[in-house]
Amino acid sequence: MKVTKLSGFPEYLPAERIVEQHFLDVIRETFELHGFTSLETRAVEPVERLLGKGGDADKEIYGVTRLAEESVENPSRDVALGLHFDLTVPFARFVLENAGKLTFPYRRYQIQKVWRGERPQEGRYREFTQADIDVVDVGELSAHFEAEMPLVIAEVFAKLPIGRMTIQVNNRKIPEGFYRGIGIGTDDDTEIQNTLRIVDKLDKIGPAKVRTLLVEAGRTGEQADQCLALAAIRTEDLSFVDQVRALGVDHPTLDEGLAALSAVIRSGLDNAPGAMVADLKIARGLDYYTGTVYETQLEGYESWGSFCSGGRYDALASDGKTTYPGVGISIGVSRLLGLLLGKGLVTASRATPAAVLVAVVEEDSRRESAAVAQALRARGIPCEVAPTAAKFGKQIRYADRRGIPFVWFPQEGSVPGSMGQVKDIRSGDQVDADPATWEPPAQDLRPSVVAADPSP
Amino acid sequence: MKVTKLSGFPEYLPAERIVEQHFLDVIRETFELHGFTSLETRAVEPVERLLGKGGDADKEIYGVTRLAEESVENPSRDVALGLHFDLTVPFARFVLENAGKLTFPYRRYQIQKVWRGERPQEGRYREFTQADIDVVDVGELSAHFEAEMPLVIAEVFAKLPIGRMTIQVNNRKIPEGFYRGIGIGTDDDTEIQNTLRIVDKLDKIGPAKVRTLLVEAGRTGEQADQCLALAAIRTEDLSFVDQVRALGVDHPTLDEGLAALSAVIRSGLDNAPGAMVADLKIARGLDYYTGTVYETQLEGYESWGSFCSGGRYDALASDGKTTYPGVGISIGVSRLLGLLLGKGLVTASRATPAAVLVAVVEEDSRRESAAVAQALRARGIPCEVAPTAAKFGKQIRYADRRGIPFVWFPQEGSVPGSMGQVKDIRSGDQVDADPATWEPPAQDLRPSVVAADPSP
Repeated sequence: MKVTKLSGFPEYLPAERIVEQHFLDVIRETFELHGFTSLETRAVEPVERLLGKGGDADKEIYGVTRLAEESVENPSRDVALGLHFDLTVPFARFVLENAGKLTFPYRRYQIQKVWRGERPQEGRYREFTQADIDVVDVGELSAHFEAEMPLVIAEVFAKLPIGRMTIQVNNRKIPEGFYRGIGIGTDDDTEIQNTLRIVDKLDKIGPAKVRTLLVEAGRTGEQADQCLALAAIRTEDLSFVDQVRALGVDHPTLDEGLAALSAVIRSGLDNAPGAMVADLKIARGLDYYTGTVYETQLEGYESWGSFCSGGRYDALASDGKTTYPGVGISIGVSRLLGLLLGKGLVTASRATPAAVLVAVVEEDSRRESAAVAQALRARGIPCEVAPTAAKFGKQIRYADRRGIPFVWFPQEGSVPGSMGQVKDIRSGDQVDADPATWEPPAQDLRPSVVAADPSP
Repeated sequence: MKVTKLSGFPEYLPAERIVEQHFLDVIRETFELHGFTSLETRAVEPVERLLGKGGDADKEIYGVTRLAEESVENPSRDVALGLHFDLTVPFARFVLENAGKLTFPYRRYQIQKVWRGERPQEGRYREFTQADIDVVDVGELSAHFEAEMPLVIAEVFAKLPIGRMTIQVNNRKIPEGFYRGIGIGTDDDTEIQNTLRIVDKLDKIGPAKVRTLLVEAGRTGEQADQCLALAAIRTEDLSFVDQVRALGVDHPTLDEGLAALSAVIRSGLDNAPGAMVADLKIARGLDYYTGTVYETQLEGYESWGSFCSGGRYDALASDGKTTYPGVGISIGVSRLLGLLLGKGLVTASRATPAAVLVAVVEEDSRRESAAVAQALRARGIPCEVAPTAAKFGKQIRYADRRGIPFVWFPQEGSVPGSMGQVKDIRSGDQVDADPATWEPPAQDLRPSVVAADPSP
């Protein structure tokens, strides 16, 4: 049978997978340090629930059916299912389903695959991994959680071997209040949404075309210029407030937005200097989010778009009686790795967890080699016993091909697991060693994952 | 919209998920200590490949289609896809697809969800997690790998808070050679398969009924008795060889099988005493496996069947020119957790990673509490800042409900992140502490997962 590559379903070779595992480990460890609990939801949701979220979401959904159901004798009596396309829809459903068994505010992280039937392209996959944190509460959600989310993310990015990530923050109330302050949306609420959608194209089409579209949509030239002036404001400190004030627009919703964004940026300056920027053109999902919104760019790779996005939503979930507001942010792990691995920007020191290959002198003494390996593993040193009692040169090449730094030579005829010699195959240094006490240098114990020079 | 529980798709609450994470962490750590590299394959395979494996596999397969493809304007040009129902089929495909980029023998572990459209029942799910190790080589695979697999598994089970797991080992060549030695399969090879299938029912229907079925299938009464005598042999040491010899049957294939099984059992006696048993009734997938086969029972829960199974296959994959023999074993993680969590046999010490809740004196001093948390986290201590500046009693109850053992009280008016007091809310002990140096007891740093008395 022909082996089929499926476009949009990335799979990693061993060394690449070690890079991915390192990223996922750092993400999980950081989320847990901040007291987020892990959630893993089933891969499928009722199609009806998946469709509930957005207008044309159906284009993205993979439906799931039992093949055997197609036979006439076994008509389906199950609900129609689809694979989840994000982690927010299943999280919201889980909260509603288990509200009585959870404690609120509920801090959860979720690292899972999601599936979208989109046409695959650079940085877009049909199967990919997301890493989300959200805090959800009952009825009311304190504003300080909106400042906390980007701090957790900044800590993740600071621990990863990547370039400079900038978290761009805005608050929906700033453009909304500002637009209302200059007369947009006074008679017709949809004017706000419309204006946001056009301004959101700024990075793609530039200010001149945005201005044209705004005027075509019924805004005055002066309103359009004001919208562009607001969207141009981007500051690393709190000076965005004065810059907005200088535009001479006044509205209570704008005041609320400026105060809220100031609190988030101030917290960033205190705790993660240089990680955040107030960027008033960010208009991500402003139909969905109701307060702070986040996007994230990697310096030098701005055209790849956002690697980590999210925001506050006043109604993550609702069962009619109770509403659950939340704030969350999601790292596009596969997108980020697609860039870093695709461009050779990150690399693993070896393609296996093993730090040591224990050589086998002859097949009859394999038991002695296994005893050495067992003694090393008992002290947490990953190792492997050579697959064959080949010439030592061949056994060393076996280690070298995988990047295993050390080869252990058991002493012939010795008590199993006792003294032998260990060779660092990079330097060629070979020393006597006892498997009960020998330690590799700390940096060789596990594969290391480091930034690399970009491939040519 | 109604919230839908889906039968067969288990999801865990935070404390249960901590148990699952602990199990998965121990499994991964042990696999890596033995030098297995991680593989994660896509969730989907071409349906044609999934169907290739077994006769009625189609009943189990979930097909996957883009919902948008159902419209006439967008007819599908993609290959028909289904969710994988095990990790062996995608592993074999991955080996064929990437043979040129892998180093052999290729040692891989794979911990992933799989999906089967079976009717859900106790211990059987539609979505569940498997943890597999396999070693695959090109052309030939050394026999010592067959002894290695159950040692890795025995190490996993020894590290988990569960009762006694026994790995039952057999070798296909023993029954096959024995049957040939008493005249079964001389004229018709399918008699071997047929006899194995009937003997495999021994645990379910008992020896009397098996004897009847064997005779109905054309075996003589004497042959049937010999088959039952062989299947009754079960020894923790090498005495199974003498017991088989005492039955007076002679065949070269039987000799090979006894020698191979002896090597595996001897290795078990050397390295993991008490973990393995030679059990000659094990006939798992003997149409598929060609050498050693493994099953695993948990003492006291034998009726749940095997929690970990596998074996040797001479042709895991083949591209027509090259054949890849392998040996592998798979832990049914969800089955095991279904039993342990369902019966309350295992429990987590808390429902969050956080070891410390940093109290907030008043909302205006949240920044001081955040500084304490940051100092603790910088030294790897997971913690959370209280969500509101409620009365301390309420903040302590917040920690108590989640099982967070320590509450930290920042000193009012102090430099952020400096001295405060920490209370062990279990004992009530409260002491002065410096966030730059204080450590919780090692057993409180992370949630612990321990065996529990069964629920009534």
